[in-house]
Amino acid sequence: MFRAEAVPGEFDLIARHFTRPHRRSRALLGVGDDCALLAPARGALAVSTDMLLEGRHFFPEVDPESLGHKALAVNLSDLAAMGAHPVAFTLALALPQATDDWLSRFARGLFDLADAHGCELVGGDTTRGPLSLCITVMGEVDPVRALRRDGARAGDELWVSGDLGGAAWAVAHRQASGGWARPQGLTSALFEAAQERLHRPLPRVTLGKALAGLASAAIDLSDGLSGDLGHVLARSSQACGHRLAAQIALDQLPLHPVLGGLPLEQQWRLALAGGDDYELLFSAPVSRRSELQALAARLALPLTRIGQIEPVRQGAHDHEADRLRLIDAHGRAVSMTLQAHDHFSDHASRHE
Amino acid sequence: MFRAEAVPGEFDLIARHFTRPHRRSRALLGVGDDCALLAPARGALAVSTDMLLEGRHFFPEVDPESLGHKALAVNLSDLAAMGAHPVAFTLALALPQATDDWLSRFARGLFDLADAHGCELVGGDTTRGPLSLCITVMGEVDPVRALRRDGARAGDELWVSGDLGGAAWAVAHRQASGGWARPQGLTSALFEAAQERLHRPLPRVTLGKALAGLASAAIDLSDGLSGDLGHVLARSSQACGHRLAAQIALDQLPLHPVLGGLPLEQQWRLALAGGDDYELLFSAPVSRRSELQALAARLALPLTRIGQIEPVRQGAHDHEADRLRLIDAHGRAVSMTLQAHDHFSDHASRHE
Repeated sequence: MFRAEAVPGEFDLIARHFTRPHRRSRALLGVGDDCALLAPARGALAVSTDMLLEGRHFFPEVDPESLGHKALAVNLSDLAAMGAHPVAFTLALALPQATDDWLSRFARGLFDLADAHGCELVGGDTTRGPLSLCITVMGEVDPVRALRRDGARAGDELWVSGDLGGAAWAVAHRQASGGWARPQGLTSALFEAAQERLHRPLPRVTLGKALAGLASAAIDLSDGLSGDLGHVLARSSQACGHRLAAQIALDQLPLHPVLGGLPLEQQWRLALAGGDDYELLFSAPVSRRSELQALAARLALPLTRIGQIEPVRQGAHDHEADRLRLIDAHGRAVSMTLQAHDHFSDHASRHE
Repeated sequence: MFRAEAVPGEFDLIARHFTRPHRRSRALLGVGDDCALLAPARGALAVSTDMLLEGRHFFPEVDPESLGHKALAVNLSDLAAMGAHPVAFTLALALPQATDDWLSRFARGLFDLADAHGCELVGGDTTRGPLSLCITVMGEVDPVRALRRDGARAGDELWVSGDLGGAAWAVAHRQASGGWARPQGLTSALFEAAQERLHRPLPRVTLGKALAGLASAAIDLSDGLSGDLGHVLARSSQACGHRLAAQIALDQLPLHPVLGGLPLEQQWRLALAGGDDYELLFSAPVSRRSELQALAARLALPLTRIGQIEPVRQGAHDHEADRLRLIDAHGRAVSMTLQAHDHFSDHASRHE
């Protein structure tokens, strides 16, 4: 590989955009053979794969540069959520036709992000077909320090990086208005910031690596905080043998500034159930609080305590409402029914 | 992962089919977290990815069990062509709807082959969409002994495993007749053997591992012998700094028995330009001939000498005809124009 199916001429075009000068790297053998060969991993090898389909994970009018960025970003975000250091990735790409303009913009978005993380394209497969992508990313992590989902314990505090709801706002706006025109009354800076969150998410790789050995559990927020927190609670409950729940202080949620003009409940809903944030949600013992605050300062990245892990109350049934308790600024329980995140489609939801 | 997008209820169905009891394995952490964690590779890690699209790599009426088998087989074949030992794979799957029947048959085909090679599913991503699959496979190989494409040298003999043209015959028959009915005059045993080659190719993993350190170069035959041999010649010429060609003795080609009734030139054409054989084509110095014959006997798998690598004649232009010389049983040059293999489509060809 890089294997490409294309009409004659298109092959050269594809090869040109995905073949890069040889550099010193972990790849003993890169693109061009049956397999890539990677030098042995230090620690363990972390592997994740994600498929992105047009109309489902991105809008048909997506800018190719953003698509190249986002396709890799969502995979790097999985490495970040594990505390792993990115090493290499493979790309399978189906596209209806290969044009120089599309490929050059896609490759720019892809490689700019790859180079920023020292993550090398080691193989791939290009096919003519409806636009879709599949990336598999590989990284290295000390397996003892890796950020698993199953390490949260009662009493741990819950933290989230960055802010929430910006990408979900952009999706909702695109779906309601049928396009990307800026709504009246919103500054272009705020509008573009929200778009950026949707189209060019920043995987929290540096944060993830710093959290390895510090956080007790972590997950990246691809499908919305409530659903993703559910995965941490389920896995951690299973691991410790006690049913765990979480309390979230709604007034502590770090809301994306684009949400500012909306009714409060709508802001919470976008922050809790909206997807595509690609921030890290993690748990840590109270004793690590000051280290985490120092880390936030060092990375110039807000890390916000939004709640805590607690045991499920005796006698409670194992309902969603028992797993996730929302409280307002006065400590009063708030009742909200949160739909599972549905990306760009209204007839399916995403689970894990 | 295993991450699945589906309507509620379908998720449980998908999880049920792809979640398996824990076994001792190289996976420190398998399905269910942001990434899988694999124990460090002995030697180097070999990685390959392949995407399969309906209508392009398989017919819409494909049996799900065959699809599960073939999707993994074509990836294991890449490991075989590298001499690597399979360890793990990820699966991304888009499917229009999840039914218990389809998933159970697909999973059976997939896991029967995976278990036969001790290759573990460590993660995945399921999405609703037009049927397509992307598998990334990982294996281990000593990088010094790995079977690369660039090691063929003038004087080496060319070998191929098994037989050729059976899968290409099945594709041609399906396209000409519009279905899978057995043609008159063909025994059902021969007909089924050809179908089997197309639908359930056997990746030559054991052979590949045995060839590591023995063959000078290798490639798996996915796109047809002439095209795949071209890749070996191109890479090896670049590596040794001399332009290399190959001579193929047509009467030595191991032809699938289903081809028996066809005109000779058509048999050669299917064997040389037909794809989907997934046999190994490899080169080796003459001095290794008896070891290879002994290996064939030990594996009970025919290994056939079909020609040799030679320098491009002085003054020859770098045309396909100069790269691949076909000779008949009397040593006379045979002129054939070979089309690049086009899988199931007539408007595109596959390159590397």
